Amino acid sequence: MEHKSFKGMICPIALSLDRVGEWWSILVIREAFYGAKKFDEFQKGLTDIAPNTLTRRLKQLVDAGIFDRHRYSDRPARYEYVLTQCGRDFHPVLWSLAIWGNKHFSPKGDIISLENLKTKKKAVPFLADRITGKEMSPRDYKVVAGPAADNELRRKIAARGVLAR
Amino acid sequence: MEHKSFKGMICPIALSLDRVGEWWSILVIREAFYGAKKFDEFQKGLTDIAPNTLTRRLKQLVDAGIFDRHRYSDRPARYEYVLTQCGRDFHPVLWSLAIWGNKHFSPKGDIISLENLKTKKKAVPFLADRITGKEMSPRDYKVVAGPAADNELRRKIAARGVLAR
Repeated sequence: MEHKSFKGMICPIALSLDRVGEWWSILVIREAFYGAKKFDEFQKGLTDIAPNTLTRRLKQLVDAGIFDRHRYSDRPARYEYVLTQCGRDFHPVLWSLAIWGNKHFSPKGDIISLENLKTKKKAVPFLADRITGKEMSPRDYKVVAGPAADNELRRKIAARGVLAR
Repeated sequence: MEHKSFKGMICPIALSLDRVGEWWSILVIREAFYGAKKFDEFQKGLTDIAPNTLTRRLKQLVDAGIFDRHRYSDRPARYEYVLTQCGRDFHPVLWSLAIWGNKHFSPKGDIISLENLKTKKKAVPFLADRITGKEMSPRDYKVVAGPAADNELRRKIAARGVLAR
């Protein structure tokens, strides 16, 4: 990697981006959600990716604990890449990106949406708070330091505090 | 940019990443949610960013319609960067990344969380479906093509279809 790692930063967004922030990485995870497991399947879904880039991204995502690598053939040795629980938990990020892209960068309407398998109705996804049961508007919340915050972050939150108002 | 743009891809995730997928870009947006407006404020919150990288990222984010650039001083000419509606709508992506990072990459517990200004209780955010009123589990949904999908994407969805099962 040519750029600085975000690994030392005390911020859950930075720590996440340190794992998936490379160009192509999130699209590689997207392909897994579409069912890709084998190298060829990832490559087919990402037609413009260079094979050596795909190899590098898959290795990084395995190292980060997002994919498990299983050998599915011995002669020749071949591997498939399966999302771990951590990888499956990435789903809300992917959908939040899709919702944002549909809304702002696709003037002809939604490109994809999610349909509920039982009701056959298209989902209208939003970020909700289990405690209030309502949509989370940035205006109604402030950032607070958690147990794993360091003093520098606590100072920053105290100084600036409220999110997006 | 040295890498291929995702702009031509018919995918709302790719279109989003084309705007924010550069290294540092999402952290620049994060700083705006913490209240940063001026160049110095962004730089203070991103201590390791090179000034020319910050300049480039801010320009890209303005070009992408995520920030508005306002001149707040004439002599010397100085600018501040304010999130547009499109930029403010990025909030669920940021929080989904924070939730994922808190859960998987911070073994000592949450680094930050959101507190409701009225109830003073910490949020437990999740992705919900306005139609069912429930949490969206990938198992209960499949991807369907929207009006802006092209034939290639329709074929891909028909062939692989269901998300993350």
